[in-house]
Amino acid sequence: MRVTVADGVATVTLARPDKLNALTFGAYADLRDLLAELSRERSVRALVLAGEGRGFCSGGDVDEIIGATLGMDTARLLDFNRMTGQVVRAVRECPFPVIAAVHGVAAGAGAVLALAADFRVADPSARFAFLFTRVGLSGGDMGAAYLLPRVVGLGHATRLLMLGEPVRAAEAERIGLISELTEEGHVDEAARALARRLADGPALAHAQTKALLTAELDMPLAAAVEMDAATQALLMHGEDYAEFHAAFTEKRPPKWRGR
Amino acid sequence: MRVTVADGVATVTLARPDKLNALTFGAYADLRDLLAELSRERSVRALVLAGEGRGFCSGGDVDEIIGATLGMDTARLLDFNRMTGQVVRAVRECPFPVIAAVHGVAAGAGAVLALAADFRVADPSARFAFLFTRVGLSGGDMGAAYLLPRVVGLGHATRLLMLGEPVRAAEAERIGLISELTEEGHVDEAARALARRLADGPALAHAQTKALLTAELDMPLAAAVEMDAATQALLMHGEDYAEFHAAFTEKRPPKWRGR
Amino acid sequence: MRVTVADGVATVTLARPDKLNALTFGAYADLRDLLAELSRERSVRALVLAGEGRGFCSGGDVDEIIGATLGMDTARLLDFNRMTGQVVRAVRECPFPVIAAVHGVAAGAGAVLALAADFRVADPSARFAFLFTRVGLSGGDMGAAYLLPRVVGLGHATRLLMLGEPVRAAEAERIGLISELTEEGHVDEAARALARRLADGPALAHAQTKALLTAELDMPLAAAVEMDAATQALLMHGEDYAEFHAAFTEKRPPKWRGR
Repeated sequence: MRVTVADGVATVTLARPDKLNALTFGAYADLRDLLAELSRERSVRALVLAGEGRGFCSGGDVDEIIGATLGMDTARLLDFNRMTGQVVRAVRECPFPVIAAVHGVAAGAGAVLALAADFRVADPSARFAFLFTRVGLSGGDMGAAYLLPRVVGLGHATRLLMLGEPVRAAEAERIGLISELTEEGHVDEAARALARRLADGPALAHAQTKALLTAELDMPLAAAVEMDAATQALLMHGEDYAEFHAAFTEKRPPKWRGR
Repeated sequence: MRVTVADGVATVTLARPDKLNALTFGAYADLRDLLAELSRERSVRALVLAGEGRGFCSGGDVDEIIGATLGMDTARLLDFNRMTGQVVRAVRECPFPVIAAVHGVAAGAGAVLALAADFRVADPSARFAFLFTRVGLSGGDMGAAYLLPRVVGLGHATRLLMLGEPVRAAEAERIGLISELTEEGHVDEAARALARRLADGPALAHAQTKALLTAELDMPLAAAVEMDAATQALLMHGEDYAEFHAAFTEKRPPKWRGR
Repeated sequence: MRVTVADGVATVTLARPDKLNALTFGAYADLRDLLAELSRERSVRALVLAGEGRGFCSGGDVDEIIGATLGMDTARLLDFNRMTGQVVRAVRECPFPVIAAVHGVAAGAGAVLALAADFRVADPSARFAFLFTRVGLSGGDMGAAYLLPRVVGLGHATRLLMLGEPVRAAEAERIGLISELTEEGHVDEAARALARRLADGPALAHAQTKALLTAELDMPLAAAVEMDAATQALLMHGEDYAEFHAAFTEKRPPKWRGR
């Protein structure tokens, strides 16, 4: 896994191209720890998650993960599955937007990682496959049975999780699974441009938008409206809101500070 | 704001066309009070919310709202943001369907007002923009981060609230953001026809359908099924249900009373 | 109602074609009892729900249901409406996927039965109509106001439940209401093939996928991730997961046992 941080944009590249970026135990732990670390620092304002080589991520490695879990006792199995779930929670709960740059295969845990991101930028080679039932496991893995119905609706989610069939880019766009469809081979460039734009914008406003979208999936309307009110009152005391008004009055573009 | 009530249909027209119907403090308060008043009376069976001039509503006025909030202390900011949220709750909780007739721009608070309505009738000139982050605020404003994912799914909602980009009529139709696409310039006529039809129909059945849709977003399946059962038992003692059966038996159209 | 069980696949055929398979009091009770019975046995791994004749199911019989309920007191009305809701809960909670094979009309309770299924296989003759308001009742019947917004989004759901207008196959596919569109007249065949495939697959993994999809609609993300972790730990001790790994290593297709 390669990590770079430049001018507010973190880029995490899964870099095991000979194995289609299959995840190992270490990779899950590294992602969890990295997201926790970047969340504590205030310097990161957007994160791109990409895959090197022919695809995004083929999911848990058949030998290193499936083989190894077969010999584990209950406590260790729970530990492992909680760790993978923590990665998804970290993607949803970190205070910056996450952009998955998907080309080629995004399968199993790779599909759920992309699903947990705020944006999925994909090109026509992208192929999502929630193939957990294909290995004898539940389609509800790492929060997929929570997230997917909220992204594409319960009907499509049932079909995708139960059957594990691949979803190609055109269908993914039609059912709302991707945010932006680029030309072939332009995924990383488009994801970088989006991250740049987000990092250069009102980053605290973006962070709170993400936090509210995540929290309000689990909240009744009355509580959501109250949470919105408190958040806006907070941001109306922030620098970016005052800067917008000054820039508007002076007929110039705002200089966002992200606070 | 112009308000007319005729034969069960209330029409509220935002009438500040020189400012694209930008909302002032007074406009929010008027909308909140009007909806409370119409909800207490039993005479209104459908409400049309429309905008005069070139667009539906451009949202909070930059001078009158943004300028003024910059000088407010925390308590007053909370009061203001709670008031705007109360308008959205009133739209969702009033006992009659609300139809937003959208042509031209529906931006900021205008986009959320339309989103909170039960029906969005729009023509090809319609342009929705949840542009809160563009002024340095959270995309979760007035319940938008609660409502939008439940209307268009989490992926589209994240994109629209985070980036604040305009959604034109064709995309709005594709992602489920509008209920009916009319020919250019026919929005008010189509909204009026729909309101007429709803008001002439079994209005209590419509009111309960709306109440259940609103409540069951926040309820587990078992409770929802129980709430449906109690509601249907109630309506099966109502006049309209008996009238349907009589009309069916006599092979004539039912005369709905709305009770 | 005809019921057959063969090699793990149960087929329930509504068989009152002269009445477009309109449901009677007895039919609801039979469906509820049948699903309870099949859920207790471990032999059924997939269920097809189909209709004989010109359509799937026209809903509650106007004479036998509407006529009779007009004479009922409150307690009996509640009993009846709870019973219909129990059928929907049984479809959502039974430990095997349910496939609705929809041709022609699926109206009223028939539309909700199809909606509660995990898969809706339909052909171009299919026509869904949630026509409860047309008889003076609430569109929220048997959990429809809970399920429909989670399948097609709140905007489409409001339109369909409030107006009771028919949704034809093309629109149903566009808004995510059907899982698979077949050629005209091939619905039963496609539903049987899907049931066969599910029954021959890792049936316990399918059952748990369904249980998680159902439960996690009503659960916050953190709880859902924990539930997924416990479920996968359980299934990683199951026979099918070990069989997948053995088959993968031996480069042969897995022989699923469903446990």
